[in-house]
Amino acid sequence: MTKDNRLTTEELHQKVENILKKYHKEECIYKLSEIYDKDLSKENCEILEKELKKLLEPYKNGSIGLAQINPIAGDIEYNAKKVVKYIMHAQNIGLNLVVFPELTLMGYPIEDTIDRHPIIVEENIKWLKEIAKITKETSAIVGFVEPRKYDHLTGKKYYNSVAILQNGKIQGIVRKSLLPTYSEFNDYRYIEPSPVIGNQPGETLGNFDSEKIRKCETVNTINNLKYGISICEDCWNNKEFFNDTTLYSIDPIEELSKEKPDVFINCSASPTRAKKEQLKHNMLSFISKKYSTPIVYVNQVGAIDNSSFDGSSRVFDKNGKLLARAKSFKEQFLIVNPHKNLGKIYPLTKGLEKTLTEAKVYTLEYEPDLERTYKTIIQGIQDYFKKTGFKRAVLGLSGGLDSTVCAVLLADALGCENVFGVSMPSKITSFESKSDAEKLANNLGINFAEASIKDMVETTNNCLQKLFRTVEEKWDCRYKQSFTMDNIQARSRAIFLWGISNEFDRCLPIATSDKSELYMGYATINGDMSGGFAPIADVPKTKLFALARWLNKNREVKNAIPEAIILKKPGAELAINPQTGKPLIAEDALMPYEFLDEIIWRIENKKEHYYDMLNSTFLYEKNNEISKEQKIQWLDKFYRRMAAALYKWSILPPSVIVDSRSINKYDYKQPITSSRINYKGLDEKEIAEKIHSFV
Amino acid sequence: MTKDNRLTTEELHQKVENILKKYHKEECIYKLSEIYDKDLSKENCEILEKELKKLLEPYKNGSIGLAQINPIAGDIEYNAKKVVKYIMHAQNIGLNLVVFPELTLMGYPIEDTIDRHPIIVEENIKWLKEIAKITKETSAIVGFVEPRKYDHLTGKKYYNSVAILQNGKIQGIVRKSLLPTYSEFNDYRYIEPSPVIGNQPGETLGNFDSEKIRKCETVNTINNLKYGISICEDCWNNKEFFNDTTLYSIDPIEELSKEKPDVFINCSASPTRAKKEQLKHNMLSFISKKYSTPIVYVNQVGAIDNSSFDGSSRVFDKNGKLLARAKSFKEQFLIVNPHKNLGKIYPLTKGLEKTLTEAKVYTLEYEPDLERTYKTIIQGIQDYFKKTGFKRAVLGLSGGLDSTVCAVLLADALGCENVFGVSMPSKITSFESKSDAEKLANNLGINFAEASIKDMVETTNNCLQKLFRTVEEKWDCRYKQSFTMDNIQARSRAIFLWGISNEFDRCLPIATSDKSELYMGYATINGDMSGGFAPIADVPKTKLFALARWLNKNREVKNAIPEAIILKKPGAELAINPQTGKPLIAEDALMPYEFLDEIIWRIENKKEHYYDMLNSTFLYEKNNEISKEQKIQWLDKFYRRMAAALYKWSILPPSVIVDSRSINKYDYKQPITSSRINYKGLDEKEIAEKIHSFV
Repeated sequence: MTKDNRLTTEELHQKVENILKKYHKEECIYKLSEIYDKDLSKENCEILEKELKKLLEPYKNGSIGLAQINPIAGDIEYNAKKVVKYIMHAQNIGLNLVVFPELTLMGYPIEDTIDRHPIIVEENIKWLKEIAKITKETSAIVGFVEPRKYDHLTGKKYYNSVAILQNGKIQGIVRKSLLPTYSEFNDYRYIEPSPVIGNQPGETLGNFDSEKIRKCETVNTINNLKYGISICEDCWNNKEFFNDTTLYSIDPIEELSKEKPDVFINCSASPTRAKKEQLKHNMLSFISKKYSTPIVYVNQVGAIDNSSFDGSSRVFDKNGKLLARAKSFKEQFLIVNPHKNLGKIYPLTKGLEKTLTEAKVYTLEYEPDLERTYKTIIQGIQDYFKKTGFKRAVLGLSGGLDSTVCAVLLADALGCENVFGVSMPSKITSFESKSDAEKLANNLGINFAEASIKDMVETTNNCLQKLFRTVEEKWDCRYKQSFTMDNIQARSRAIFLWGISNEFDRCLPIATSDKSELYMGYATINGDMSGGFAPIADVPKTKLFALARWLNKNREVKNAIPEAIILKKPGAELAINPQTGKPLIAEDALMPYEFLDEIIWRIENKKEHYYDMLNSTFLYEKNNEISKEQKIQWLDKFYRRMAAALYKWSILPPSVIVDSRSINKYDYKQPITSSRINYKGLDEKEIAEKIHSFV
Repeated sequence: MTKDNRLTTEELHQKVENILKKYHKEECIYKLSEIYDKDLSKENCEILEKELKKLLEPYKNGSIGLAQINPIAGDIEYNAKKVVKYIMHAQNIGLNLVVFPELTLMGYPIEDTIDRHPIIVEENIKWLKEIAKITKETSAIVGFVEPRKYDHLTGKKYYNSVAILQNGKIQGIVRKSLLPTYSEFNDYRYIEPSPVIGNQPGETLGNFDSEKIRKCETVNTINNLKYGISICEDCWNNKEFFNDTTLYSIDPIEELSKEKPDVFINCSASPTRAKKEQLKHNMLSFISKKYSTPIVYVNQVGAIDNSSFDGSSRVFDKNGKLLARAKSFKEQFLIVNPHKNLGKIYPLTKGLEKTLTEAKVYTLEYEPDLERTYKTIIQGIQDYFKKTGFKRAVLGLSGGLDSTVCAVLLADALGCENVFGVSMPSKITSFESKSDAEKLANNLGINFAEASIKDMVETTNNCLQKLFRTVEEKWDCRYKQSFTMDNIQARSRAIFLWGISNEFDRCLPIATSDKSELYMGYATINGDMSGGFAPIADVPKTKLFALARWLNKNREVKNAIPEAIILKKPGAELAINPQTGKPLIAEDALMPYEFLDEIIWRIENKKEHYYDMLNSTFLYEKNNEISKEQKIQWLDKFYRRMAAALYKWSILPPSVIVDSRSINKYDYKQPITSSRINYKGLDEKEIAEKIHSFV
């Protein structure tokens, strides 16, 4: 909202009056807070704070503000401004406590940034100390990177800590003990796990010596209530909940529970992934119930590079019942009081709650996960552009599904005026493709241009053919197959898009490759897989079809995607199929997408291997008769092509992680030179025979 | 060596006779071993083994073979074949023990490969068990990935282990305790640190339960000698050596020493980096001396993706004196007996031993490190090509330094017949550039072609200008600067190179960007920074000049690089400098390379920040008068451009890590969206003022 859209004081008064008239007291607190979350003048702020303070008076003891903020990694001033804003707000309306997400001042993850720029660690300490000075009665729990003293150090240089600020001082510090090192997480790279659980005195800042642990209460006492504070992963290790299969040997929550805190507080930065919400919900509920202690969970929101954090901060009462939940994918300041049953449950983005379970076999029912998928990607695009300073996007519109869905997502994320779709027909491109692309652009209201690549491709081909003849004189290993020339089309288009990106202010070209095709390496290097950002790199093709239909149904402008685009068979339109005389269809070159996507699903979600899959019945097999030979051929092709695609994954632009597993290089790491693994395996007898042949 | 080059039996007999006649007994062992390291017929093998056995008889008790092998990550059969070969050899010549590097059967690093393909973990166990069966009196220490039992598991799923094989059985297992998670290392991602040090019984394979640790000797007794076995990082934590500043709280070597082993064994996979060798040498020497116990250190050799392992396995006697050292950058089987003073010290690659220390300020004396740099990159190229199945390389030859040095390295790594250099002049390219490129190709004996990009660039420009006019109608933010068109030249060239790669069998295009220019983002996306491999991405420009001179002096064919190439000022030849009418020089666009490279050196090696550098005297300042304003301008430009280059680093092709720090994405990780950090910092007063302005 720009300043021009701000409410006038008169409008605000009117609004407040209406709310107070219409709703009961608790609801008024939330209605007024929603106004507060918007951009307000100082005067209007004060009006709202006065009203909120009045309303909150009966809830004061034990009241907590959940400050679900969207930080920029490493931009301490930007993050600190948000911290100050919400501390002041909490103070002005008389809350006991305001809680921020993990690593508030730095943003999460921060990685090697703190190693290359140690100055920002010093800075985050300076900011923390200065922020402490403005605190009064209201406590604030703020995350930061804590340097450990340097001489004679055992372990890593930093702790991942939160400080408890009150009455102008740092009153206590809690340090993270459990450090995730799986999937996209890499905490142990710079962070030392805390050897103690819970509170240590504020004086230990930067100089906590584990050999001289001071006797102090593990839980923090703030305004006469006891808070058991932990950071993110620290609450993910309950043996009972995880059926005795846990990643770490200690359970910080169990330790904290021994001093019978009145409330658990957990400061988190936990990104959304398929299937994660259900687990998180059940686990937090389990903990609060088990220890008969309410838990307040404050999560980061917003995207940092490839990780999209959903927010959805929440509170469970001591019976394990959900008492309050903040919005998903939005900054919010949510006021609760777990002891006085004050809370509001904002709706969860659909798909966060309903997810496929491990046990469930593969289906094509993507519907329950589409709203989450949409919002995850939208936030990913918005924050990548905003946080790197870009504003505009340009992409090729082929009239196919991938570029179409990308265009819709970009229009919704950046505003249609900031998106340029370019149709770049070659001599193979059909009239339908061109007109579908234009129709789509018109429906979306994005900018549109058509620019033929015919001349470029022709000139390039002429030059290259000559060059090939020279090379052929020395190297007797020429393929003379069409894919060399096919790729030139894709690369010529990328030259157009990068040209626009270079020529126009703050404009990024978009890579439109999807997950199914990336798995198969069916993407052109410096062509369709090249760009500044890859929005759908973690969305398989069958899900993209579902997403296209969902977009047509659920966006404000219905049916923006022409039906013809959804109905046509995907194909790169780079080559002609000699059998049909028509452009080659991708499934001819690969395999049916339904089958392909089920392989991906089984590998990522069930960790199945070759023979597991050969012996399972695929959904595609239920609906289509295929021979065992055909299935073997497809499976072999999959493994062969996946191995050859490893290099392409390593140079894929930043993308948004959506699924429970992805091929994003920060989430999946495999040496490119390990492409020769034997995915079929050998039995003991074969191995013994081979060994004897080696001897 | 191909079969045709194999020695005949007669030739071998002759050679053996000569050796036995000429050298004393110990030297004969090594001379004969050197023949054995080559490809031999079965018959010749037996002849050699008979001779070696005879010679080794007096050294038998306590004799050890160091099997310094070059594995392929995940290709268990390939790796196992080497293991079997050396076990049989050790057995046939009557050694007590043969030792292999860390994770022998899998290769190191292995990363998510074992998570996606759990079948290869099963396979490596099957191979291990079958290999155990062929062992007799000679023990073998073989590295493998050990699955931990799955039900009720605490911690990660695997151990990084070595098995002691003897008399047909797995006699014992040692598991890694200290897991590196810095730089390119990521062990803790899948590996659980072992809770105990040293030996556990063979029966615990795959089912080691830390809660029921069996009483057993920590050290292994093999043929009446006691061996204290550890894995890689386990020996890098001596408090005294590291001045009380260590990464882990326990020291496995200290633990092992309590049972007074006769020898320490350390199985490693430790890549070469600038400044590492000196540290390693001193540390191993320190340990053996401190505990009065010889140490046998067996290192992996060869490159896996970005990491180049130098081998250089070695033995120190109980006084800390170097007794034996294997070759650097070569597979080798080295026979030693630390108790009978049997050993040979092969020369270390120059540069491994002589390194710049932390304390030393930046100099331009690269000479001591150039042989190591050369061999590290050569091995990196060779293994990347071999292990991914590629054979040929194509690169653009601009007549500039970067592509020139790349061409020499490729010719030496792959053979000149497998390299194609293409000169791709534009209308800006000078006659000298073209002729320098051709001269270089002739000197190297690589294939050469010239292909003008003029037509392509002209056609593309025409098409793009039209497109830009359309875009301009909607977006009022056109730059109209030359760099858009400059980039088209670089991208057109990449289309040629990728075209050749697509069209010719097993051919990879090469990205020629150097480290200095990558730091500044002075590299074109889909242009010169695009390729299948980037050989010099970790070599700064000033070092490249030194390397070029070194190559001219030290290669068999002297002065292959025309002097004119070394003398000319680097520049991309993409644009004309309006002031001079000549092609723009890179230093005009950036800053003097000497200054730039010193910034990089200070940041990477001394972790200096902005003001540290502003207040230091740079080498460049000693030789040139520059104003403070100029220095500030360069420093600011550096930080600004480095932040904007983060995206480019994320899509850089695989490269070889050479320096003590690099920007390789597996070695340096920083969120792209963290580009807005304040590298100058603020003081307390400024921060307090800002906070009050937020309130």
